[in-house]
Amino acid sequence: MSLTDPDRLFPVEPSLRDRARALYDSVKDLPIVSPHGHCDPRWFAENERFPNPAELFVVPDHYVFRMLVSQGVKLTDLGVPREDGGETETDPRAIWRRFAENMKLFRATPSEMWLNHSFEHVFGLTEPLSAATAEMYYDHIDAKLAEPAFRPRALFESFGIEVLATTEGALDDLRWHRQMRDSGWTGRVVTTYRPDAVVDPEFEGFAENVARLGEITGEDTATWAGYLDAHRARRAFFKDHGATASDHGHASARTANLSQAEAAALFDKARAGTCSAEEADLFRGQMLTEMARMSLDDGLTLQIHAGSRRNHSAQVFAAHGRDKGFDIPGRTDYVAALKPMLDAVGMEPGLTIILFTLDETVYGRELAPLAGAYPSLKLGPPWWFFDSYEGIKRFREATTETCGFYNTAGFNDDTRAFCSIPARHDVARRSDCAYLATLVGTGRLREAEAFEVARDLSYQLAKDAYGL
Amino acid sequence: MSLTDPDRLFPVEPSLRDRARALYDSVKDLPIVSPHGHCDPRWFAENERFPNPAELFVVPDHYVFRMLVSQGVKLTDLGVPREDGGETETDPRAIWRRFAENMKLFRATPSEMWLNHSFEHVFGLTEPLSAATAEMYYDHIDAKLAEPAFRPRALFESFGIEVLATTEGALDDLRWHRQMRDSGWTGRVVTTYRPDAVVDPEFEGFAENVARLGEITGEDTATWAGYLDAHRARRAFFKDHGATASDHGHASARTANLSQAEAAALFDKARAGTCSAEEADLFRGQMLTEMARMSLDDGLTLQIHAGSRRNHSAQVFAAHGRDKGFDIPGRTDYVAALKPMLDAVGMEPGLTIILFTLDETVYGRELAPLAGAYPSLKLGPPWWFFDSYEGIKRFREATTETCGFYNTAGFNDDTRAFCSIPARHDVARRSDCAYLATLVGTGRLREAEAFEVARDLSYQLAKDAYGL
Amino acid sequence: MSLTDPDRLFPVEPSLRDRARALYDSVKDLPIVSPHGHCDPRWFAENERFPNPAELFVVPDHYVFRMLVSQGVKLTDLGVPREDGGETETDPRAIWRRFAENMKLFRATPSEMWLNHSFEHVFGLTEPLSAATAEMYYDHIDAKLAEPAFRPRALFESFGIEVLATTEGALDDLRWHRQMRDSGWTGRVVTTYRPDAVVDPEFEGFAENVARLGEITGEDTATWAGYLDAHRARRAFFKDHGATASDHGHASARTANLSQAEAAALFDKARAGTCSAEEADLFRGQMLTEMARMSLDDGLTLQIHAGSRRNHSAQVFAAHGRDKGFDIPGRTDYVAALKPMLDAVGMEPGLTIILFTLDETVYGRELAPLAGAYPSLKLGPPWWFFDSYEGIKRFREATTETCGFYNTAGFNDDTRAFCSIPARHDVARRSDCAYLATLVGTGRLREAEAFEVARDLSYQLAKDAYGL
Repeated sequence: MSLTDPDRLFPVEPSLRDRARALYDSVKDLPIVSPHGHCDPRWFAENERFPNPAELFVVPDHYVFRMLVSQGVKLTDLGVPREDGGETETDPRAIWRRFAENMKLFRATPSEMWLNHSFEHVFGLTEPLSAATAEMYYDHIDAKLAEPAFRPRALFESFGIEVLATTEGALDDLRWHRQMRDSGWTGRVVTTYRPDAVVDPEFEGFAENVARLGEITGEDTATWAGYLDAHRARRAFFKDHGATASDHGHASARTANLSQAEAAALFDKARAGTCSAEEADLFRGQMLTEMARMSLDDGLTLQIHAGSRRNHSAQVFAAHGRDKGFDIPGRTDYVAALKPMLDAVGMEPGLTIILFTLDETVYGRELAPLAGAYPSLKLGPPWWFFDSYEGIKRFREATTETCGFYNTAGFNDDTRAFCSIPARHDVARRSDCAYLATLVGTGRLREAEAFEVARDLSYQLAKDAYGL
Repeated sequence: MSLTDPDRLFPVEPSLRDRARALYDSVKDLPIVSPHGHCDPRWFAENERFPNPAELFVVPDHYVFRMLVSQGVKLTDLGVPREDGGETETDPRAIWRRFAENMKLFRATPSEMWLNHSFEHVFGLTEPLSAATAEMYYDHIDAKLAEPAFRPRALFESFGIEVLATTEGALDDLRWHRQMRDSGWTGRVVTTYRPDAVVDPEFEGFAENVARLGEITGEDTATWAGYLDAHRARRAFFKDHGATASDHGHASARTANLSQAEAAALFDKARAGTCSAEEADLFRGQMLTEMARMSLDDGLTLQIHAGSRRNHSAQVFAAHGRDKGFDIPGRTDYVAALKPMLDAVGMEPGLTIILFTLDETVYGRELAPLAGAYPSLKLGPPWWFFDSYEGIKRFREATTETCGFYNTAGFNDDTRAFCSIPARHDVARRSDCAYLATLVGTGRLREAEAFEVARDLSYQLAKDAYGL
Repeated sequence: MSLTDPDRLFPVEPSLRDRARALYDSVKDLPIVSPHGHCDPRWFAENERFPNPAELFVVPDHYVFRMLVSQGVKLTDLGVPREDGGETETDPRAIWRRFAENMKLFRATPSEMWLNHSFEHVFGLTEPLSAATAEMYYDHIDAKLAEPAFRPRALFESFGIEVLATTEGALDDLRWHRQMRDSGWTGRVVTTYRPDAVVDPEFEGFAENVARLGEITGEDTATWAGYLDAHRARRAFFKDHGATASDHGHASARTANLSQAEAAALFDKARAGTCSAEEADLFRGQMLTEMARMSLDDGLTLQIHAGSRRNHSAQVFAAHGRDKGFDIPGRTDYVAALKPMLDAVGMEPGLTIILFTLDETVYGRELAPLAGAYPSLKLGPPWWFFDSYEGIKRFREATTETCGFYNTAGFNDDTRAFCSIPARHDVARRSDCAYLATLVGTGRLREAEAFEVARDLSYQLAKDAYGL
């Protein structure tokens, strides 16, 4: 018995399936390059055991718990922490059982495929998880987690990870990264500069955050020039902890290119908390252009993750805070939005800007034409809801004909679910090989080239785009 | 000779085709649950014969006549009634001939598949309809319609319909439903509460309609409180005639959650006819939230059909009125639009809101993420132009990975073309089985689960979502 | 060895592949009808040799050079002319080498397929172009271009072109068309009336252009009535040079139907250069309706190419001017935009308006419902970025179920790359046959009908829609 079909995601027509399998076999054992994600660096710094199956697979994974919530399970019954002081389930076995009983909700979702891949290939389980097998699963996984081979560093190595990027806020002291380095462990875990809290005037505590940025860097962040210098200092500090990229999560892809005097005046309003919503948006847009300019100097790759309408449910946000599965994508324009930044720096050699979207309609209409023209632009892989077989298929079909493969940036797993990393890269490699096999089978790509492209998509493009 | 391929809509690859056929064989004879549609209850109340082939297949079906119009046939030459007093074709044979001569326009459309299914499986015809066979078809169908087995109730039973929902306005006296009940006929035909005419300030005669609502219910609909009570009374009356749902056809999905004082003031303006377009829209949005609140009390499922720009051609509207094939979809936002209602009631247990769209771009970007989080939300099946093989395929591929199967609401035929009901459910069952077979063949769904899901999609989910 | 797979673009499943090949074999040798494109009529008037491989395949083709630019090659290093007086590469061999070295960027793009088709079927080359074969390619093509069989008229004939439409501005004297006619050559090359420069108040030199229009026609273009008469005169002049259509490239699909007094007042502002951006847009929209009215009189087919945000990079526009690969599509509404024109003339018999889009989201949501209702509307084929296997597949899958085949207008190659014309029509014929084979294989179209439809899509619909 097996939880995972060895030919999963390959085309069914026999000649295509054979081609896809051959392509996949040539890339499946390549090291994992994970240039963007949300693993906790503390895991690798301290290398403690993961506490239990529920806290590994359910409590931190908004893909999992929001699906249970959508069918009436309460967040509190899944142990999801509250911000309003109320109680939540504390028994991990009870949480696990609720999850196991509802596995049918995940049928044909990528979550199910990632989970089954982890269950089988990390923990050696081969029977489907269900109410009937819930206790067996719990005991089995819990026992494994106690073994040295299931500590974070050991898993990192057995997963074949060549490099893993975490994401930290601009004010983070990067202590875990330092502790890792000082420990002499040779696993490569790098940070990423994510300055949303000191860039977004609408972020909780923006003014205090900016003041704190000044304290940390010794720059006068009460002035626009000092504020920019403080960013430069933090970027250098992050680079010193391995960073090769910055990352920016904005509701829109808006950019701006104000005069420095206008920008300084806007910054004063932002610090004073007197920005209108429009001005706050303008300031965020200006900062993308400023970050791109800094990238010209320090070489960090600029990532723009645009389009999530965060915390859609006021009730869930009040009770449980951010990142609880209620972030909903919306329409996102890139053509007008990116023009100011692109007019400023878009034709510069050596600059890399990676665009992500939650609006699939822009793949062919906006992103591929932009990336197929501007030398600075690359397309990030399908993100979040679209990091899946169908999502990857739509992405390739909509973008390749216009911008080819070499204006894309390889795969990102973008996850905080550590055990899902091999599963996610495996899905991406299989999905890309399925697509390449179809191209070869329909006379759109030569076979020898397909093997080259398979390796590029699985490994090389991510290294190149992120300078890893 | 046959008009319909027994393996139609199944994948062509032999192993997938076998799987799809096996899945389809397991569901093809399940009873039809038709929870939303526009059949005329009078048919079943009076049980008279249908007048002739043209009035059965052409004159009332805007899918059919608008396609002929698009190639230069005049609505008047098809017997479509005029509102401006002009003449129209009265000879049903002449109408039928014009239709038959133009069958090539329907090649590869769902209309053709529905028509051929009806011709073959209801009327026993096996030669294609064309100019050459037009008279034979007319005579054959006309003769059949005279037989008792082709009366509405007999067809209802031979179609295997377990339950059929019709749709009536809030002011309807539901006499036909009562007559059906009183007749002792055991066919289950239920009504649905569709209050657009008393909810939309821009509806023709809104103020009179609201006054009439007061007369019918004995409530003082000159006040906001009385108006809401009148809705409660009508909902109870509709429930007493079988209704398990309300339905709302709005140009957008906008909702609002005003204070009761604000809502009352807006209602006064609406009654006085002094709403701006923006205020009328706000009032409609407020009423969706009010309807959702009433659903918390009376358990009716709330359906939102959003996004049709009705009566696009001023000329056709002036000559022929509503529902003449000139309703064109437009872009429709759901994320911001639904937030007020969802903040008010979206996390409530026991509430079911079914969302429909004519904007396929929102399937993966907005609707699946919303339905995959909020317990109150379910996704209705592809609607109108998208109730087809390709439409269903796109819907499943775009939504399943994010919200699974169990946040969807099964199939709706949504038709006023009675003879097409079995054909439409058949297309949906085939299309879903084709999709499920592909999932199994690519290792994304276990075979035993696929049979369970096929039954759920074909039958159970509709019953559950509508409480039928 | 071969550069092109004889079964390219056909489905892989053997029974579908056989069907697709049979359909394709029935249409592959039909004459080419090219009703819209940008070939230079001078080629056919003078019939001089094409200068060299770089100027045939690289320098004029923005599909090719923008892909190289997207990976860091400079426009100047590809010989693309500058408007700012700076230098550009003048050695065609150097340009060719840069192109050849970067062929991997085009993997799986339609450009690669068009190029390989031209290399193999026009020039007889069978090894892939690469750095290693660059010189051989250059020498081979250059030698061929010196042969009489590779002169423009000879290629026109060997390509099997029945009719080719070029596109000229309203002020063009059409001398090349006249020279062709006077030469006695029997190749049919017709012009198309493209009046953007005298219709768009924001076009460079609009007022002067309008004055010049008056001089050419002898009409008083200082008045609205004279301006319209001047258009009528030019349309007649273009018709006399073979034109059967006008063409309009607008950023949006906006139309208007002002009173003639309002239009005249707006025209005065346009001539005076005092239009706001909104008024300029309104004027363009009014002119689409005026053009449609003139079409009622003179029978020209009206083409609307809407949705390109032209000259996105300010830097590239300043250095190199228009049409340099930096035209990016954006969201485009058709439903509200077209209503004024359609209310004015949309139900008229004998009028043909062909709609093009760069926003694929409107295929199923807006364009197919509109074309499936209004007798004047037809859908143009996938345009620009979407003139490809996947683009055609998405177009057919999204439109056919709603508007069928007979509300579409056949294929346009829309190219200025002469040698790619057979390749582009071949891709369209193969892609359509692949789609038709799938319809037959899944019981959605009868086999005999598929052969009829294949011929219509490849040949007849274009002739009919353009009156050719």
